[in-house]
Amino acid sequence: MGEERQSVHAIFDELVARKSVRAFEDREIPKDVRSRILEAAFQAPTAGNQQLYSIIDVHDQQVRERLAELCDHQPFIAKAKMVLVFVADCEKWHAAYEEAGIDARPAGPGDLLLSFADAAIAAQNAVVAAWAEGVGSCYIGDVLERYEAMRELLRLPCQAMPAVMLVFGYPTEQQKRRPKPLRMPSDCVVMRDAYQPLSGEKLREMLASRLGTKGFEEWVRAFHDRKYASAFAAEMNRSAACYLEAFGEREG
Amino acid sequence: MGEERQSVHAIFDELVARKSVRAFEDREIPKDVRSRILEAAFQAPTAGNQQLYSIIDVHDQQVRERLAELCDHQPFIAKAKMVLVFVADCEKWHAAYEEAGIDARPAGPGDLLLSFADAAIAAQNAVVAAWAEGVGSCYIGDVLERYEAMRELLRLPCQAMPAVMLVFGYPTEQQKRRPKPLRMPSDCVVMRDAYQPLSGEKLREMLASRLGTKGFEEWVRAFHDRKYASAFAAEMNRSAACYLEAFGEREG
Repeated sequence: MGEERQSVHAIFDELVARKSVRAFEDREIPKDVRSRILEAAFQAPTAGNQQLYSIIDVHDQQVRERLAELCDHQPFIAKAKMVLVFVADCEKWHAAYEEAGIDARPAGPGDLLLSFADAAIAAQNAVVAAWAEGVGSCYIGDVLERYEAMRELLRLPCQAMPAVMLVFGYPTEQQKRRPKPLRMPSDCVVMRDAYQPLSGEKLREMLASRLGTKGFEEWVRAFHDRKYASAFAAEMNRSAACYLEAFGEREG
Repeated sequence: MGEERQSVHAIFDELVARKSVRAFEDREIPKDVRSRILEAAFQAPTAGNQQLYSIIDVHDQQVRERLAELCDHQPFIAKAKMVLVFVADCEKWHAAYEEAGIDARPAGPGDLLLSFADAAIAAQNAVVAAWAEGVGSCYIGDVLERYEAMRELLRLPCQAMPAVMLVFGYPTEQQKRRPKPLRMPSDCVVMRDAYQPLSGEKLREMLASRLGTKGFEEWVRAFHDRKYASAFAAEMNRSAACYLEAFGEREG
């Protein structure tokens, strides 16, 4: 743990350098590398050592193609060499309680959010381990969409839902050269002691590095229309509401 | 990116070795180390480069004491040398849309979950960076509890909620020696191509390493009563439901 200064820097530098990769070489990920990526996920911190997640490792090319469709039609998903769906899973422990003869309460929204965090935390360890191996990755947030079709495809029980999806592969040369997009200024992210709403001026600083030749209003409106007001965002909200409702289904 | 074999191993080994630390030396975390921990968080993957989170960096000792109380009375929280609340934040972008003159829709459950994942992913980068620096950390899932008091203490607007809290500090010798708890067998976590419910036999294997001298039923019942059926779990479910409802408040 941090004894060697060199290793500290190596880790910090890799965390900073890591960027999303959306185009992959046609080269398989060796088995031992896959295993280390998964092992890193298992070893992530987890609430009460419960591992409130399951990882669906999608090998079947037909399932990958279908996921590419369901996740807002992104064909690069089907070209990845490793596809992992991190499922926020309250079903497994519930089943263990039943196996022990306990009539346990259904999972509630707190359990869901706790397992959702568990899944995302494990996923990020997989991302970091992969990057260290030279394997790129990309999160697919769209896995929250298409509730009915996704539930059927992945045969999800009602106390389980996809939290994040990750696709992996060796980056193409173009992807290696692609610059990592700048983050916001730190004082737009870190707040002292309590939440501080950002002033209009700060909101403009927050996005200044992204505007290119556009003015603030023009850039923000285009971004809003493309993302926040998009059909996929509406679908994500509809679908997420279905998952939240399903989690309560056993109640009452 | 993974060019040097040595650095690959260093990173994987640190991810595997990292364990939660709940007792800290009375030694401050230097400013440059704090900065790198935060920078690692900023550089984490984030949906559409939006950084849908804010980080409340709690310096005020009174706020720390109050957080220790609100998070199920865990005094060690107030003894940490760095306390970060990662807030799933849909308020900030909404404010940017308003600043640009857009009458944007309120955030929905999909936006909430996406920002929740963003916050947890950023937090895990902070954990990994800290560990590399010799700084231990512990997630506090209880930050989801006590909706009314937490919202007031952290002055959270309605489209923002705490996702995870992290406390940091240099581990005591006892904490360094403490063995990391074993994870589940991998075949209880990884499922191929679709969700696979675990058989009774598998559920027993899943928890076998934890039972000590107890039988499965006895251990599971004790765990269930202590965790899943606890007052804090009930409070977490109540509180999380309030946050979910508040997110929709601007709607309709």
